[in-house]
Amino acid sequence: MSKEKLSIIKIGGNIIENDTSLNTFLKLFSNLKEKKILVHGGGKRATNIASRLGITSKILSGRRITDAETLEVITMVYGGLVNKNIVAKLQALSTNAIGLSGADANSIQAVKRPVKTIDYGFAGDVKKVASNAIDALIRADFTPVFCGITHDGNGQLLNTNADTIASELAIGMSKIYETSIYYCFELNGVLRDIKDESSVVKQINSKAYKTLLEDGIITDGMLPKLENCFKALKSGVSKVHMGNRAMLTKENDNFTTITL
Amino acid sequence: MSKEKLSIIKIGGNIIENDTSLNTFLKLFSNLKEKKILVHGGGKRATNIASRLGITSKILSGRRITDAETLEVITMVYGGLVNKNIVAKLQALSTNAIGLSGADANSIQAVKRPVKTIDYGFAGDVKKVASNAIDALIRADFTPVFCGITHDGNGQLLNTNADTIASELAIGMSKIYETSIYYCFELNGVLRDIKDESSVVKQINSKAYKTLLEDGIITDGMLPKLENCFKALKSGVSKVHMGNRAMLTKENDNFTTITL
Repeated sequence: MSKEKLSIIKIGGNIIENDTSLNTFLKLFSNLKEKKILVHGGGKRATNIASRLGITSKILSGRRITDAETLEVITMVYGGLVNKNIVAKLQALSTNAIGLSGADANSIQAVKRPVKTIDYGFAGDVKKVASNAIDALIRADFTPVFCGITHDGNGQLLNTNADTIASELAIGMSKIYETSIYYCFELNGVLRDIKDESSVVKQINSKAYKTLLEDGIITDGMLPKLENCFKALKSGVSKVHMGNRAMLTKENDNFTTITL
Repeated sequence: MSKEKLSIIKIGGNIIENDTSLNTFLKLFSNLKEKKILVHGGGKRATNIASRLGITSKILSGRRITDAETLEVITMVYGGLVNKNIVAKLQALSTNAIGLSGADANSIQAVKRPVKTIDYGFAGDVKKVASNAIDALIRADFTPVFCGITHDGNGQLLNTNADTIASELAIGMSKIYETSIYYCFELNGVLRDIKDESSVVKQINSKAYKTLLEDGIITDGMLPKLENCFKALKSGVSKVHMGNRAMLTKENDNFTTITL
């Protein structure tokens, strides 16, 4: 028997910063007929609140170091401010949203990242997605809205990258559903020419990916993102899409779809 | 057929401020066998964060005026920091908690308080408790943890007193359950002599309440609390208890129980 479809849609900081763009996105998201989960970041807002509180954001090798104070800010901004506002906006669009951190419903357990050369502080690497608990919410007709916070099961909240939350959720839920990920960002998708928004590579599979790598089309910023996509696809996820929010409309096919 | 029991337990700022006292309370809460809902405040922490952000808390006639900036702080602190930490701590105690604002699961709709002599800003008066949605969570074995935030159904979050959330939840859920409220605070209960913690009035009904009023035992601070208790009892709630956290243990009977 074929599995029912579930879409996991991830939005980044750029959509959240701008109220008009967030409202437009949420309308598209609400209109999606299939079962769905929203995952959101919120980076800039956390940095802004942190600086107003006199907390300096520490970035090492491009990654945020989550000390105790920074974790408090992230918990306030991602779990409170951003999450609850998105949920209230979705309710106004008749989508029965329920905002979650990984601690809520014990939905995403993580382990504090082990200290090797760098101590990332309260950063969490996902250990277990409680697919049945999340499914209980979906079956009760709620639409889960996740922020980038997990927990270790011993009372400690942890900061986890929202892209990772999206792919781990998609992997975990693939036991029950045929899952797809939609990464919504500022670009139209993977571009052949970074300066040309119309040069979207519409389909990428493992073979095409190798060619794109050899041709130098996939570069720095996109490389880890695509590596994660293939990891998710190899772990049970059906499809990964990348593009701007317009990919959620049926008329538009100008985005990237990645399959194995 | 008699209804199943549901306890709504409300904790105030004093328990939350102190980590040891919060942990002790959460252990007692986790040990309760019956179906239950936790409601928390978090006032001082919000005031503290607001002042660090350079926002002055405006209090008029003893009530907080919720301007847009204050609402942001409340959403961050109540909905994020306090709520998610309580949920993570409950998970560590094997209670499958799920943190909620009134926007989540559309659980508590409110209306922005009409402006008469005072403009309370983004303060919400509860209009509707979605008892079936909340019950869906309880039946899926989740323990709801509510903060003092509601929404208006049009995308606007609102600040609502946590005592009120507790009583409105108890009233709303009384359609399905035999509901009791436990107000946990610093005192042992309603005291005959405010200076004597052993002078707890253990039982109060409508008749005893009149006598206590006439005798001047019930004074300023306790008066609105008790008026709310009787309002809840008249609206379907079975019992209201007031006392310190020890009332959640079976051995202790040194607290106040209010009935019609």
